[in-house]
Amino acid sequence: MAVEPYRLTATEVRAKIQAGELTVEAYARSLLSHIEKRDPIVKAWEYLDPEQVIAQAKKLDAIPKDQRGPLHGVAVAATHPNPILISRDSFSPSTDMPTRHGSVLYKDSSPQVDAASIIVLRDAGALLLGKTTTTEFAATVAGPKTINPHTASPSSKIRTPGGSSSGSGAAVADFQAPLALGTQTGGSTIRPASFNGIYALKPTWNAISREGQKIYSLILDTLGLFARSVEDLQLLADVFALADDEAPTETFEVKGAKIALLKTMVWPHVGPGTEAALAKGVELLKAHGAEVQEIEFAAELEGLPEWHATVLHSEGRVNFLPEYRVGKEELHEFLVGHVDNVNKISRAAQLEAFDNIGAARPKVDKMLGAYDAVLVPSAVDEAPEGLGSTGSAAFNAPWTALHVPVVNLIGFGGPNGMPVGVSLVAPRYRDRHLLSVAKAVGKIFEAEGGWKSQL
Amino acid sequence: MAVEPYRLTATEVRAKIQAGELTVEAYARSLLSHIEKRDPIVKAWEYLDPEQVIAQAKKLDAIPKDQRGPLHGVAVAATHPNPILISRDSFSPSTDMPTRHGSVLYKDSSPQVDAASIIVLRDAGALLLGKTTTTEFAATVAGPKTINPHTASPSSKIRTPGGSSSGSGAAVADFQAPLALGTQTGGSTIRPASFNGIYALKPTWNAISREGQKIYSLILDTLGLFARSVEDLQLLADVFALADDEAPTETFEVKGAKIALLKTMVWPHVGPGTEAALAKGVELLKAHGAEVQEIEFAAELEGLPEWHATVLHSEGRVNFLPEYRVGKEELHEFLVGHVDNVNKISRAAQLEAFDNIGAARPKVDKMLGAYDAVLVPSAVDEAPEGLGSTGSAAFNAPWTALHVPVVNLIGFGGPNGMPVGVSLVAPRYRDRHLLSVAKAVGKIFEAEGGWKSQL
Repeated sequence: MAVEPYRLTATEVRAKIQAGELTVEAYARSLLSHIEKRDPIVKAWEYLDPEQVIAQAKKLDAIPKDQRGPLHGVAVAATHPNPILISRDSFSPSTDMPTRHGSVLYKDSSPQVDAASIIVLRDAGALLLGKTTTTEFAATVAGPKTINPHTASPSSKIRTPGGSSSGSGAAVADFQAPLALGTQTGGSTIRPASFNGIYALKPTWNAISREGQKIYSLILDTLGLFARSVEDLQLLADVFALADDEAPTETFEVKGAKIALLKTMVWPHVGPGTEAALAKGVELLKAHGAEVQEIEFAAELEGLPEWHATVLHSEGRVNFLPEYRVGKEELHEFLVGHVDNVNKISRAAQLEAFDNIGAARPKVDKMLGAYDAVLVPSAVDEAPEGLGSTGSAAFNAPWTALHVPVVNLIGFGGPNGMPVGVSLVAPRYRDRHLLSVAKAVGKIFEAEGGWKSQL
Repeated sequence: MAVEPYRLTATEVRAKIQAGELTVEAYARSLLSHIEKRDPIVKAWEYLDPEQVIAQAKKLDAIPKDQRGPLHGVAVAATHPNPILISRDSFSPSTDMPTRHGSVLYKDSSPQVDAASIIVLRDAGALLLGKTTTTEFAATVAGPKTINPHTASPSSKIRTPGGSSSGSGAAVADFQAPLALGTQTGGSTIRPASFNGIYALKPTWNAISREGQKIYSLILDTLGLFARSVEDLQLLADVFALADDEAPTETFEVKGAKIALLKTMVWPHVGPGTEAALAKGVELLKAHGAEVQEIEFAAELEGLPEWHATVLHSEGRVNFLPEYRVGKEELHEFLVGHVDNVNKISRAAQLEAFDNIGAARPKVDKMLGAYDAVLVPSAVDEAPEGLGSTGSAAFNAPWTALHVPVVNLIGFGGPNGMPVGVSLVAPRYRDRHLLSVAKAVGKIFEAEGGWKSQL
């Protein structure tokens, strides 16, 4: 029996459409019918209009073959396709999709222009499904309505899909979209990827334009990418023109590879699921001939988590001032606290944290660059129960601050059968190299890690 | 004879409106009538709808006295009030004002939401006049239609108002608006201020939200403020909640002050107007009892201009990718060159420049912090002739990269009678202190520098 189109990865669906074996409309209808069935339970969408999706699909099908983009017909979900541009557009602008930032302050906001990332995706021929849910301004840990799709069966205890890119993580895991965009300021991409058992790339900071996303912190906010295979992340990396100085080897060999294990200074927070997943990951790497060496951050970098928090709160103070002025009472108290500077962070402390992180970046690049990749925890543990909190970003914040690329890998499960991710990191602007390593390592972890998605 | 309202500074007009001596509508009509007379010559506006301005003014007049904001009725022009929010707004949203970024790619772009800075200004009760001209994406030196208002008489040779915030600089100098917003990525605020003979503050990077401005470089782009008095810049600094760790002394005393003179590594570019203005500035400071000492950048910081250019081009490569993909042929070749990476900047070179600037910031803060303020050139010389080029940002780029606040002061003239600015700089987040020093020093320069605006 043929696989239902909605279950295909981006790479697979792209090949079928290119080969003329599948129309974009048929693909869209398959996705929409699956979404219709699942949405009442998973609630991954903030906005999705089936008619709009079908209209887009029909337009894409009508484009002559020689004028089709590299992502022709491939469906994408997005948490934050905000403002920005553009005139020469053959599709309906995202005007039609409200951009609410998970905040009532923006309840009527319907930008007439696309976010930079959406422009690039549209131009590449992507089928934009709609907006997935996010926590308020992608800036709080108060969960939206979305549930972790692995807890969608009636007998399951509901768990969070993580956040802030909650809906994107859930939608991709639940086969409601093969690709999704999110953001990461603390752990908003890697954490939901880990909780939902999918791949994700947090690229090098500023390697993809963040234009059109609400700003929390200029120096931290990073666009994130979700997929169900590393090949699909590579496809997106192509579309977004991610480029290292040197093209990576086509096929990375785990045998003989030099991998480091770095538990980081927040290791005391670790839960049993992540501890076991990392141990199993190391065991598998060694079994496949990799050399694995444990390393540590230099003592002078112990302050990274605190520096991240200091910068985050200080930048939030600036960037939520407009919302505070206009509707303080409708803004989460955590964000009100940033503007009120409740932690009494001085400018001197803010600058010290900012500069310390800046000084750490080249040092950490050098440390990471001594290995093919470095294995690190993705999250504290399995997704926590309930929807109240999207979980801790403790294991992600240092990497976000350091601007380095991070890929979440899957294949491991926790004590409750939930997915538990582990991450690979590399120096800044080695995104393509990291994806190449992640593809090889991910294949092993998926095959032998012991956890398989039941979705 | 009473001064025509359009000639008042923001502080003056605010007082008159508060005292009930002037309605916002009467003020708006005075400005509009002046603009009507001058606009055919100066061409500072990209968009201005007199009816919309009058409607706004009437609404402002109808607000009960106890509900008025700190900027109630004060007129502001803006180069980039782009996208972003907001629902609970009592005025017509900036929807009505197209945001074209000086590019045909955005010719139909009419954001339904305000830029963060515009939200804050609206909330404070400002009268938003319209959009002033900018160079393409505030990113090129190809001048827009705007002329330097000091060359508006039929007998004058036309000169550039500078850029990229061309219209904002010209409008404020020409009494078409008392306040204006601009941006600075290289020298786009301080240079037009110098060329037009007005005050400007380039605040500490990220001290005011840049949300809603087109992104050129995340680490360089800074919102800039224009006014015809330092008090007016202080008024805006209040509205935007700029705060140092310590409140500055109410009245800064030039007598006994420690001021440094720093010609910078780009001094060989200097023209006779700037050279004379700086010399005269030093002479006046000394005459008023300040201690002036010449200092230099450490040799290891000689690379600052090149590091700025490397970061700028590398970040432009990311942030103009969407426009390149959609309409390369309609994008300035300078920006196409960024995306094509014509200078072949490697990631390694990009990171080295980024990290070198990062390491320089705390060192330069320390150097600047040993003085009450540091006097530096604002521009190469008087505004160049013609509208072809908005001039060089050589003297501004290092300060933009260093994130420090800069205030342009007026009072000096060049060989052709055009204004020539000089700047004061201070360490990051000493914006309020710097304004306090600028107020005292500016008073002396304006009174005794020898140049007076004939407008």
